[in-house]
Amino acid sequence: MRTRLEIPPDSLFGPQHLPYGVFAPGGDDFRVGVRVGDHVIDLATALDDPVFARPNLNPFLAQGPRRWAQVRERVRELVDGGLSADAVFPLAAVHLALPVRIGDYVDFYASIHHATNLGKLLRPGSEPLLPNWRHLPVGYHGRAGTVVVSGTDIVRPCGQRRTNSDTPDFGPSRRLDIEAELGFVIGVGSELGSSIGTAGFADHVFGVALINDWSARDIQAWEYQPLGPFLGKSFATSMGAWVTPLAALESARIPLQPQDPPPLPYLREQHPWGLNLELCVRWNGDLVARPPYSGMYWSPAQMLAHLTVNGAATRPGDLFASGTISGPAADQRGSFMELSWGGTEPLTVAGSERTFLLDGDEVTITATAPGTAGTRLGLGEVTGRILPARNH
Amino acid sequence: MRTRLEIPPDSLFGPQHLPYGVFAPGGDDFRVGVRVGDHVIDLATALDDPVFARPNLNPFLAQGPRRWAQVRERVRELVDGGLSADAVFPLAAVHLALPVRIGDYVDFYASIHHATNLGKLLRPGSEPLLPNWRHLPVGYHGRAGTVVVSGTDIVRPCGQRRTNSDTPDFGPSRRLDIEAELGFVIGVGSELGSSIGTAGFADHVFGVALINDWSARDIQAWEYQPLGPFLGKSFATSMGAWVTPLAALESARIPLQPQDPPPLPYLREQHPWGLNLELCVRWNGDLVARPPYSGMYWSPAQMLAHLTVNGAATRPGDLFASGTISGPAADQRGSFMELSWGGTEPLTVAGSERTFLLDGDEVTITATAPGTAGTRLGLGEVTGRILPARNH
Repeated sequence: MRTRLEIPPDSLFGPQHLPYGVFAPGGDDFRVGVRVGDHVIDLATALDDPVFARPNLNPFLAQGPRRWAQVRERVRELVDGGLSADAVFPLAAVHLALPVRIGDYVDFYASIHHATNLGKLLRPGSEPLLPNWRHLPVGYHGRAGTVVVSGTDIVRPCGQRRTNSDTPDFGPSRRLDIEAELGFVIGVGSELGSSIGTAGFADHVFGVALINDWSARDIQAWEYQPLGPFLGKSFATSMGAWVTPLAALESARIPLQPQDPPPLPYLREQHPWGLNLELCVRWNGDLVARPPYSGMYWSPAQMLAHLTVNGAATRPGDLFASGTISGPAADQRGSFMELSWGGTEPLTVAGSERTFLLDGDEVTITATAPGTAGTRLGLGEVTGRILPARNH
Repeated sequence: MRTRLEIPPDSLFGPQHLPYGVFAPGGDDFRVGVRVGDHVIDLATALDDPVFARPNLNPFLAQGPRRWAQVRERVRELVDGGLSADAVFPLAAVHLALPVRIGDYVDFYASIHHATNLGKLLRPGSEPLLPNWRHLPVGYHGRAGTVVVSGTDIVRPCGQRRTNSDTPDFGPSRRLDIEAELGFVIGVGSELGSSIGTAGFADHVFGVALINDWSARDIQAWEYQPLGPFLGKSFATSMGAWVTPLAALESARIPLQPQDPPPLPYLREQHPWGLNLELCVRWNGDLVARPPYSGMYWSPAQMLAHLTVNGAATRPGDLFASGTISGPAADQRGSFMELSWGGTEPLTVAGSERTFLLDGDEVTITATAPGTAGTRLGLGEVTGRILPARNH
């Protein structure tokens, strides 16, 4: 029996979008699906291809961009023409899993507004941007093994917290924060000793997903010199369950803001990968920020070119993220550290004054982008709720 | 036909040692083996167990410490009593691969002599140790996907290099260095939201291997503020092919040096995991340093307790390394940065003056430890040769 999917005309998950995820109709029989409206298409059944009967996208990603395009075209035909009823599940009835097995996870720091805000907060009185910032996309490695799918509860981390002296105390973080980011999923890797130029971006990167890089600011502030953030970040990073292919974002591409000084040759791009995405950050349901991705200083193609210019290998499923997305306006900041200006200017959230996260709080980040023919796409949300600390 | 292995009495790989690796007798049919003398025992054949017919140790590691002890005992019986000739290969005839599939790779900074030397070199005139250093094992995430097995050639990385101005230049690293380290392989992981106390070290960590954390100091110096080392390290990290089980190192355990101030409760250990290993660093065959592991400030049990105190999950095959091993004496330093004092005091290597690595140079790190009954164990070497840069 063939069925045609009902998709509301204003759906953010219409036939122009077709993001990929990993789902189980029941139990833990996870496999690859495509979201259309409020349905999930089981690709292993619909396309009769075992590459999709796997608990992550990695084997499909490794097949490369020609294959990605073929499958996208075939799925669009099925959505238009109807498909077998046993290949379609209601979204509300399935379990979602992390869509990729992540090899390495790199987090960048590509918003000039975010970097400037943090410089002002952490090094008041000095030049907020460090000398290297305008020359390279600053980044570092995060913990791949603690990237969790949207909806996973987040246990408040314990650790050594900065105090006003040179001696730390220990306990649950008191300055638990979010970072609203965009993540980029590598499909086709690169060999050790080789690099990926900016023009090779779409040959290697499959798509994007929203990221919340939870951050314990008091732990981070004490630990991060001189080797960077570690336990202040490694307890959890949430990732949206749906990976939007780059192919769906063609109408969202925009030029970058001017870069001054001009970047070194390996960072220049012919066809810019600025992206016109609008994020919304909701704290216990209240909209507290609308960070615009359009103001990011470094493009993802520049990030990947930088990541590999030293010959570092990449693998299918590697993830790199933009860093906190903040715009120039006060209500465009992508972290509570910035929105509350280091905790000194509380926000009103559901009627009460807030600076950092309390146990039981829930944060949900969503984003939309222009699609073809005046449509809009929604990047799958990334959400998480804070559970009390266990370890003290 | 059964055979008894000939093992010279002074072998560093005698029946008290029995390190694990991954090898292929020919082609790429990689599987798990144990090294005895100059032989490799094919465990899949010798023990008729498919868990060893895999291209990495991970499935065996996940079986846990009771199983590790059983297999070690069984292998010792086979070595003593003789084993089937088709289960033994000469070491010289096999290919070796990376022994584990590494999930996350964390690098610590646990030598007080190394941290003090780098503080003096990088921040002359100020206190060399930062305020956090004596309170926690400083660490950060490295790139798991560029850990390579000993013997892999290392392509000189390109990147943005620090100059004397606030503008970088670009090209092959001119200050390519080593870091002689000890790596710890996690066997049994831990769940997100839980932690591993110091007393749980041997229940979770399977064994150790030598690490050379190649470092491009000019790239690192420019990039590392404020988020830590990235491209200066991510081009390659070499790992020894043989993982020595903790069970073989019982005679190497020693108390730590006194820690002042006393560490926080979660970092205290009842049964200390100091290790009496002696490393040798050879540069083009010349012995240039003998770093002692016995002087490390933080123990590996403290490192793992710190890594997980925030609830970060760990997985079988995760790797964490000690950071550069340096002793108090000038010839005990585990990096060329320290041995040449920032490039100002060249070493004589094979008759010529050297500071950092030239193309074609080869570095080999070895280590020995006390075994039972007056024997000595050798940790498998980690070696690599520098190839010219490609990317400029």
